[in-house]
Amino acid sequence: MRHFISLTQLTNQEIYDCLDLAEAYRMGRIPLKEKLFAANLFFENSTRTKMSFAVAERKLGMDILDFHVEASSVRKGESLYDTAKTFEAIGADLIVIRHEADDWFQQLDQKVSVPIINAGAGKAEHPTQCLLDLLTIYQEFGRFEDLQIVIVGDIKHSRVAKSNAFALQRLGAKVYLSAAPGYVDEELDFPYISMDEAARICDVVMLLRIQHERHEHQLTTTNYLTKFGLTKDREKEMKQHAIILHPAPVNRGVEIDSDLVECDRSRIFKQMNNGVYIRMAIIALMLNEWGITNEYTLEKC
Amino acid sequence: MRHFISLTQLTNQEIYDCLDLAEAYRMGRIPLKEKLFAANLFFENSTRTKMSFAVAERKLGMDILDFHVEASSVRKGESLYDTAKTFEAIGADLIVIRHEADDWFQQLDQKVSVPIINAGAGKAEHPTQCLLDLLTIYQEFGRFEDLQIVIVGDIKHSRVAKSNAFALQRLGAKVYLSAAPGYVDEELDFPYISMDEAARICDVVMLLRIQHERHEHQLTTTNYLTKFGLTKDREKEMKQHAIILHPAPVNRGVEIDSDLVECDRSRIFKQMNNGVYIRMAIIALMLNEWGITNEYTLEKC
Amino acid sequence: MRHFISLTQLTNQEIYDCLDLAEAYRMGRIPLKEKLFAANLFFENSTRTKMSFAVAERKLGMDILDFHVEASSVRKGESLYDTAKTFEAIGADLIVIRHEADDWFQQLDQKVSVPIINAGAGKAEHPTQCLLDLLTIYQEFGRFEDLQIVIVGDIKHSRVAKSNAFALQRLGAKVYLSAAPGYVDEELDFPYISMDEAARICDVVMLLRIQHERHEHQLTTTNYLTKFGLTKDREKEMKQHAIILHPAPVNRGVEIDSDLVECDRSRIFKQMNNGVYIRMAIIALMLNEWGITNEYTLEKC
Repeated sequence: MRHFISLTQLTNQEIYDCLDLAEAYRMGRIPLKEKLFAANLFFENSTRTKMSFAVAERKLGMDILDFHVEASSVRKGESLYDTAKTFEAIGADLIVIRHEADDWFQQLDQKVSVPIINAGAGKAEHPTQCLLDLLTIYQEFGRFEDLQIVIVGDIKHSRVAKSNAFALQRLGAKVYLSAAPGYVDEELDFPYISMDEAARICDVVMLLRIQHERHEHQLTTTNYLTKFGLTKDREKEMKQHAIILHPAPVNRGVEIDSDLVECDRSRIFKQMNNGVYIRMAIIALMLNEWGITNEYTLEKC
Repeated sequence: MRHFISLTQLTNQEIYDCLDLAEAYRMGRIPLKEKLFAANLFFENSTRTKMSFAVAERKLGMDILDFHVEASSVRKGESLYDTAKTFEAIGADLIVIRHEADDWFQQLDQKVSVPIINAGAGKAEHPTQCLLDLLTIYQEFGRFEDLQIVIVGDIKHSRVAKSNAFALQRLGAKVYLSAAPGYVDEELDFPYISMDEAARICDVVMLLRIQHERHEHQLTTTNYLTKFGLTKDREKEMKQHAIILHPAPVNRGVEIDSDLVECDRSRIFKQMNNGVYIRMAIIALMLNEWGITNEYTLEKC
Repeated sequence: MRHFISLTQLTNQEIYDCLDLAEAYRMGRIPLKEKLFAANLFFENSTRTKMSFAVAERKLGMDILDFHVEASSVRKGESLYDTAKTFEAIGADLIVIRHEADDWFQQLDQKVSVPIINAGAGKAEHPTQCLLDLLTIYQEFGRFEDLQIVIVGDIKHSRVAKSNAFALQRLGAKVYLSAAPGYVDEELDFPYISMDEAARICDVVMLLRIQHERHEHQLTTTNYLTKFGLTKDREKEMKQHAIILHPAPVNRGVEIDSDLVECDRSRIFKQMNNGVYIRMAIIALMLNEWGITNEYTLEKC
């Protein structure tokens, strides 16, 4: 058999041989090196999150099933649920999902027998981003208690703002918000302050990205930087040890003056670096809890 | 040389050094770990087939060359033939192809010196799907002789129906077809029966997907389920041990009631799981026949 | 924790545990197998170059971060600079870039602390293509001195023509150009000759691809082959030992008669094969200079 193109190439005996060999592989009668597979299902664009999950998975000795929604059966109408169940069926040991629906997880919980990690849920949650933000602050100050932290920008549409605000608060920080009028979230019970005040009093200025892709009507960004963003003048007012965070991608010149992206106070690229280690930690903890092991697995976390 | 951007950075001597090193790699004078590369060329959308080939290849210790047609030279007009020859030239040890042309294989046979596996040829063939269907039936019943099997749905445009029908027949099964008027293939010499009868008499109800993407004029699907699909009522009429197959993705509520996709009789996700092992078997058999070896290769199949 | 969906699932203590574990990974306190990561950032379509870099990287024991511009944050407006810095931050050990701007490298030089290899810069440079062309000629003739070499085609828009012409000249070859009127580059100081003469006198006929995607106004290709390309008649006039090169993808029947693509004189698929080894050599030399090591690294080049 030079190439395998048609079932008509196989005799009945060869079909049975093939079925038997498949069964032998399935039953583990032919020894193979154990592999762990991570399926990264990104239904929204991503560079940082997707690539840092990839680095984390590889560092933990996992193989990656690289799913491209545009070239997948999602384009034939297959749902997220059926897609996730497919990856479960073909042997994924971990499923990482980013999806535009706020509540995509509801349909999968209790139904998928493989650990799932949220890599972004619409405007609702992005918990590994929160953890890497926490890590970056923790590295800097060694604590959260009594830190003054402002979250600035599109609070209303951000999947990071809420999680971060609540997490920082329960870890002991004093949390403020700062937002242009259209970006205020009325339901959040944190004090709003101006960007001028924020720059002056805070230890951490945590900027958010204006997510143009989530806005039906674009807020005009004329003078946005001057009115609501981190200008060079405001940066000069910051406390000596204060730092700047941003989840990126940065709209340079909008949320922040382009020159500040790599200034001494900026931890923006440090955050990306931390993202790899936080994702390793979360993956390791999850695999450990599920009893999924390879040579890299934690014996005990 | 900090970065390599231009040939002008290299002296003549450095150019010769680079050519010599390349020759040393080519002639194997610098020992490297042997690698086997699988190129998965999917010109049509796929989740299951593509990902299960990927899992199978990785389990067999192969590296994957992940080709994305939309970001490839196919968009500059390069043909399937030249694309396949390119992968041969850069060192693919196996080429897996899905393409929309029924007869794409004709142009490659005798011309490509690397084993090729058909992962879907237009409306014509999808042999690894057939094998995984056979495996699922074989696991269930331990035989094909005297099984009553119905293939239901878009017989005319299916690349699975014909192969499955003929293969099951020569393995001893009694094969029926069931189709809505527009989906009947007049050239197939198998008895057509109604879905009511099919459900009642068959051991295996093998549903096909309505492939909307292959129909110029969409068949209205109003009442399709009730008239021609597997409803809950029909499922209740099935024999006690009878099972349901579907290659997926499933149009839930069209070919089959959504609730039946994961019912006790359904082997739909089992089929996907079997797909990994069948592809491992076919790849292993092919590599073995070509004398392509790595640490996982079968000594003898 | 069955799935990780929200930060609210974690107690404060669990958050601290996760941060501590991430720090342990970051500081290398949990031993893991060292991995080298190559990021292949292709902003333009590619089959050969991208896939041969992939093969080269894998053969050298590197892991690949497979970036897809269409599914990345570039679609949210992120620049090449911020994209490259992101890959630096998440741990790429090598960045390979193809981009449509002639001078994309300017913005990255001195700013990115990871070795960068140019895999194509607009109409300006494609140095690894030049090196593989040189290797193919060197394998054939064992020298460059006194070889008569013609570069044929769209000289003006080619990123290979200039680099090849200058490199071949300083290595001792006699270089000619041949081009249809619209494709002449007036600034290059090499003699232009007709295709008839080129075929007759040259040892190497190096064809270029007409890059339809870079032309605002398409040159009509009526009779292009007969007037300016390599026809079968011209091939018969070539010297006995003379060879044909083309970087591919080939516009069959335009630059070259389709039948000649795989004729005895053609080294077109040989070039692709050489591309893998040249890229291995360049990567190995770069990693060596940066002191980046794995089990495959050259001790000394």
